[in-house]
Amino acid sequence: MTQLTDKKFLQIAFDIPNFEAVEQLLKRIQYHDRLILELGTPLIKNEGLTHLLPLFRKYFPINYVVADLKTLDVGRLEVELASIAGANGCVVSGLAPKETILEFGKACEEFGLDMWIDSLGTSQTSFLRLVDSIKSFLKVVIIHRGIDEELGKEKRQNNVNWNDILRIKRINQAKIAVAGGINQETALKAIQQGADIVIVGRYVYSSETPQKEINNLLEIITL
Amino acid sequence: MTQLTDKKFLQIAFDIPNFEAVEQLLKRIQYHDRLILELGTPLIKNEGLTHLLPLFRKYFPINYVVADLKTLDVGRLEVELASIAGANGCVVSGLAPKETILEFGKACEEFGLDMWIDSLGTSQTSFLRLVDSIKSFLKVVIIHRGIDEELGKEKRQNNVNWNDILRIKRINQAKIAVAGGINQETALKAIQQGADIVIVGRYVYSSETPQKEINNLLEIITL
Repeated sequence: MTQLTDKKFLQIAFDIPNFEAVEQLLKRIQYHDRLILELGTPLIKNEGLTHLLPLFRKYFPINYVVADLKTLDVGRLEVELASIAGANGCVVSGLAPKETILEFGKACEEFGLDMWIDSLGTSQTSFLRLVDSIKSFLKVVIIHRGIDEELGKEKRQNNVNWNDILRIKRINQAKIAVAGGINQETALKAIQQGADIVIVGRYVYSSETPQKEINNLLEIITL
Repeated sequence: MTQLTDKKFLQIAFDIPNFEAVEQLLKRIQYHDRLILELGTPLIKNEGLTHLLPLFRKYFPINYVVADLKTLDVGRLEVELASIAGANGCVVSGLAPKETILEFGKACEEFGLDMWIDSLGTSQTSFLRLVDSIKSFLKVVIIHRGIDEELGKEKRQNNVNWNDILRIKRINQAKIAVAGGINQETALKAIQQGADIVIVGRYVYSSETPQKEINNLLEIITL
């Protein structure tokens, strides 16, 4: 289960930065073989990989754990740290310099982690070209609408989007994860458009009944 | 001293990800009023702000501490975390979506931290335009050559560089910090070109005699 299979997965992004709140949420989530746990970027920055992985492994010893590093520099070192901490995959930012992305990819191969890349903030043309150029390393592509972008009024027309899912899957062997504003309705739409992994954050952890939301989403992705 | 004055500063970037190694280095550095301590991005991701600030404050209770978050999303939350941890300034990535950069700036104002922005990976034209558009928030601009870029063969012609220092200072009231490949020779050149803050990492922590390197660099910036 710490490997991605051809099945669909539901990924819970832990974007709550507080260690205790994370543990409270972990306690309320039941094991399921289609769950991926994500260490969110602010959580990683606040508590550190070294301190977080043992906590997640205590509650989910055999699930896939991905560290959303959003790496921009020192690609090799950040992968090494995620590997030492015990993550199964880690995420580089699609905005990083090409050198960093390549170093990140090589290090993922060396340390046996899956390489994920995040589209946040990139333009469609450059992101698709980038993804194509690193397909030998790549395991998962995240099509991501940022939280600040979601809340902002400015609509972006030129970002990679769900209509690109099949196009990316055609040119790469990579799996597609979608993030940003996911709820039951959008989760279903994402799966129908070919997404392999649906990432939820606030929709689950802001709920009074997180396990109920998770069950509903699992039902959608395992249809 | 936890405020930036009009003097020149030497900033030590702690890019060593290991807590014990950081403490060993902290023990070997003497207090000086022109020193800024930087929590490097990989260090933050590995150990967490919550755990690092108390360590830095133990050895440098009154020096300015900047957290190199390289924020790409959730701008407000990351500033709040840096504020709770006790940093004096924090760094947003110049690659972040504009919404994130604005949220970051507003949060810095609200929480009383200095806003820093990092040029890593940006193009000259878009970075200069960006810096101009956020000048009401901005305290420090980092002109940065990334570690992976430094080591890469590909030379970038269209990045913001030291020739832009005076231009940025003219349109902004911001201070200029330079990072990437700093040693005695380049530190002197940076100061001569108008830099306010010189950031060193490996040049100090890879040295057998870190305090000696620091003394030499302090002599240059306090000329």
